[in-house]
Amino acid sequence: MSAVRLGIAGLGTVAQGVLEILRDNGAVIAARLGREIVVSRIASRSAKPDVDLGGAQFSTNLSDLLSDDVDIVVELIGTEDTAKTLIEQALANGKPVVTANKAVIARHGNELLSNNGQTPLRFEAAVAGAIPIVQALGESLIANRIESIQGIINGTCNYILTAMQEEGTPFDQALATAQKLGYAEADPTFDIEGIDAAHKLTILLSLAFDHPFDFDALHVEGISRVTTEDIQYANELGYRIKHLGIARRTEAGIEARVHPALVAKSNLLGEVDGVLNAVQVAADAAGTTLFSGPGAGGAATASAVLADVGSIVSHMGEKPQVQAARGTNSQNVLPIDQVRCPHYLRIPTKDEAGVFARVAQALSGHGINIEAVIQKEPSTDVASIVLLTQPVLEQQIRAALDEVQQLPQVAGDIARIRVE
Amino acid sequence: MSAVRLGIAGLGTVAQGVLEILRDNGAVIAARLGREIVVSRIASRSAKPDVDLGGAQFSTNLSDLLSDDVDIVVELIGTEDTAKTLIEQALANGKPVVTANKAVIARHGNELLSNNGQTPLRFEAAVAGAIPIVQALGESLIANRIESIQGIINGTCNYILTAMQEEGTPFDQALATAQKLGYAEADPTFDIEGIDAAHKLTILLSLAFDHPFDFDALHVEGISRVTTEDIQYANELGYRIKHLGIARRTEAGIEARVHPALVAKSNLLGEVDGVLNAVQVAADAAGTTLFSGPGAGGAATASAVLADVGSIVSHMGEKPQVQAARGTNSQNVLPIDQVRCPHYLRIPTKDEAGVFARVAQALSGHGINIEAVIQKEPSTDVASIVLLTQPVLEQQIRAALDEVQQLPQVAGDIARIRVE
Repeated sequence: MSAVRLGIAGLGTVAQGVLEILRDNGAVIAARLGREIVVSRIASRSAKPDVDLGGAQFSTNLSDLLSDDVDIVVELIGTEDTAKTLIEQALANGKPVVTANKAVIARHGNELLSNNGQTPLRFEAAVAGAIPIVQALGESLIANRIESIQGIINGTCNYILTAMQEEGTPFDQALATAQKLGYAEADPTFDIEGIDAAHKLTILLSLAFDHPFDFDALHVEGISRVTTEDIQYANELGYRIKHLGIARRTEAGIEARVHPALVAKSNLLGEVDGVLNAVQVAADAAGTTLFSGPGAGGAATASAVLADVGSIVSHMGEKPQVQAARGTNSQNVLPIDQVRCPHYLRIPTKDEAGVFARVAQALSGHGINIEAVIQKEPSTDVASIVLLTQPVLEQQIRAALDEVQQLPQVAGDIARIRVE
Repeated sequence: MSAVRLGIAGLGTVAQGVLEILRDNGAVIAARLGREIVVSRIASRSAKPDVDLGGAQFSTNLSDLLSDDVDIVVELIGTEDTAKTLIEQALANGKPVVTANKAVIARHGNELLSNNGQTPLRFEAAVAGAIPIVQALGESLIANRIESIQGIINGTCNYILTAMQEEGTPFDQALATAQKLGYAEADPTFDIEGIDAAHKLTILLSLAFDHPFDFDALHVEGISRVTTEDIQYANELGYRIKHLGIARRTEAGIEARVHPALVAKSNLLGEVDGVLNAVQVAADAAGTTLFSGPGAGGAATASAVLADVGSIVSHMGEKPQVQAARGTNSQNVLPIDQVRCPHYLRIPTKDEAGVFARVAQALSGHGINIEAVIQKEPSTDVASIVLLTQPVLEQQIRAALDEVQQLPQVAGDIARIRVE
C-alpha cells in the first residue's frame, strides 16, 4: 500500500522528535502498521531552521498542510488560536488530525470534537507525554465508572517539589535550577501556577466522566507558596507534598481541582519524583491503576503523537470510533467551597502557654476536628503548630482560619495545604 | 443499532465479573460504544451454578457458543486444550474472540494468531489483569523500539515476598496465609514456581520484540528458595527482592527470564507491593514508563475482557488491525548461560580469620569483581559473607560458585539472586 503522508505544523522539539523517530524507527513502524509513514510537508511560521527534514517540503504557510499530498495533519504549534484554526480547517477538509496541544483541547475541545463522528481528532500527546492515559481512559477502562483521578501532570512542579524535598532547596532556588536545566520556561507562570496542569486535568475530567471540556470550572492553585518547612513537616506526618490534578465523583458532585496536596508515602504516587508524571485512576471494576513516565520532552511526546497516527492509520478509510457518550454528563463541577477534604495546617504562634488550646478551641467552634499534631520547641520566639484536620468543607475551614488568623497568639500567615 | 451479543465460555470469577459489570455499567458502556453489549449465551461444562445469568441461555456444550446468536466469543475457561479448540472453532466461524487465557496464548499464540488478518483474537486480560499493557505495547508504543520489560506479573509471588519483607514472615507461613486469603491455590506450584509469570512474559516478549510466542525458550525460576534473611540483606544494600519477568534486547541477543531479582529501592518497581502487578517498559522514544494495578481478581480481569470487547465492537465489520510485524523477529532467545548481570551472593562460612580473602580470591580467579560487601558478626558459629558482584555471565558465576561451594571454609549452601 502507498505510504501515509503526514503534514506537520510547527518545528519545535516535538516535531523534530517525530522526524527523528521516523528516521530511526520508520522501518519497524511500517512493518507493524503494514504501511509506511512519511512526512510530506512541514509548515512553520518561522523560517526554515537547520534541521534535517527528511525530504519533506517546507513552507511558512500553514494552509499548505491542507494540500492533497497530506493524509494526516499533525498540529504541534504552541499558539492556541492558530492551532485551533488549523485543526478546524483540516477536519473540514476531511483530514484526520493529531495534536499535542492541551490548551486547544481544554478550551475548544467541545467544538472541535463535535465533528468527531466524521474525521478523527486525537490528542494522546496533550496529556502526560508518553503515558498512554488518553487511551487508557477512552478505551482500556471503557467498562468502568471512574471514581477518581489523581495526577502528577506537570513535570516542572514535580521537579521543583522533589528538589525542595530531597535537598531542602528553597522554592526560588529550585525554580532557578529548573530553568537552568530547561525544565522550566523563562516565564514559568504557566507551569508553576498550575495552568498547564489545569489544561490537562480538563481533558482527563472529560474522558473520565464523559463530561464536556470545562476549563473555567476548575479550581487552580500553583506551588509558589509551598515551603521546605511544610515539606519537612509533611514528611514527619508520613506524607509527601505533590502538585496534583484531582478529579473525583462524589455524592455532592464532580470535583476538579489543581493544587499542592499531601500524599501518603505509602501511595505509589508519592514516590513519583523529578520530572516524571503519573496518573492514578480509581475505577469501579479495574480497581486502582497507576501510569507513570516522562510527561514531556521531544521524543516522549513524539512517541505519543505517532501512537495516535498509528491508530488512525490502522483504521483508515473506516469511520472513526465515535465517543458517543462524550460530553453527555451534565453534572456541574462542584465549586471549591463545596469540596470536602482533610487539611494540613501550619500556624505560626507566639511561644506562650495555652496557645494550642486556644487554636483548637477556635477550630472546634467551626466543627473542625484534629487528626494529628506536631508541636515543636521553637527555634526563635515563633513556635509552629502543625496539624492535620479530619475531612472538612472548604468554606468551613476558610471561615475557621479567618478567625484563627486574627487570634493575638498567632504570629504569622497560616499555611494550608489539602490532603489527598 | 442492534445489541452486540457475547457468548461466554466458563462461569468462574472472571465470567461472573463480566456479567456483573454489564449489569451495573451496561448503560454507560452502551452510551460510550454507541451499541449495547448483552450476553446471549453462557456455556460451562459444569452444571448451571447459582448465579444470575441476566437472561443468557445456559448450556453445558461449548459448541453452542458458535451459534448465530453469538457475535463475539469470550473464552474464560481454565483448561488449555478445550480453550484452544474453542478459539479455533470460533475464529474459523468468523467470530471474534476475547480470551483471558495466558497459557493458550503463550503456548499456541503463533498458530491461533496466524488467522488474525481475518478475525480478531484479543487477549488484554491474559497479562496483568486490569493493566492495559497489551494495548500499551501493541498500540501506544508502536513507534518505539522496546529496550526492556521488567514485570511483577504474579500477584501470589508479590504478596508472599511483601509479607516476608514487611513482617519477616518465613516463606512457608506467608504462602499459607496467601492460601487462606485466596491469593494462592491449594496447589501453588503454578504461581510460586514462576510458570504463570512465564506465560505472561512469553506474551510480553512477543508484543515488545515482534517475536514469536516461544514459551519453552524462557528461563524460569520461582520464589521458594528466597529467605527472609536474603530480603533483609538486600534491604541493607538498598534493594527489594521481587519476582520479575524480564525481557531485554542486548547486543548478544534477547533475554527472557523469570526469577527473583534485587530491584533498587529508588526504582518505582521496588515499591509495588502486595498482590499488585506492575510492568515497567523502557523504550527508545517514550523513555521508561510504568504501569501498575490489580493483576488478578474477577472484576479487574473482566474489565480488561470488556476493553477488548469494546475495541472489537468499535471497529466491527471492518477488517481488524493486522499486526503485520508479529512474530517476524527471528532472533533467538539467549540461553540463560549467556545472560550477564550483577549477582547477590550470601555465602555461609565458618567464623574464621581469612575466610573473606579466600572467597574473594576464588571469585577473582573466575574474573568476578565485587561491588559491595556486608560482613556481619556471626550470631552462631556460622558467619555470612553477603556481597554484590559486578555484571558477570551466568556460566561464569556458576563455575565460580561450584568452586566456592567446595571451599572448606564454606559452611552451607550459597544463595544467589540476580540483580536488575
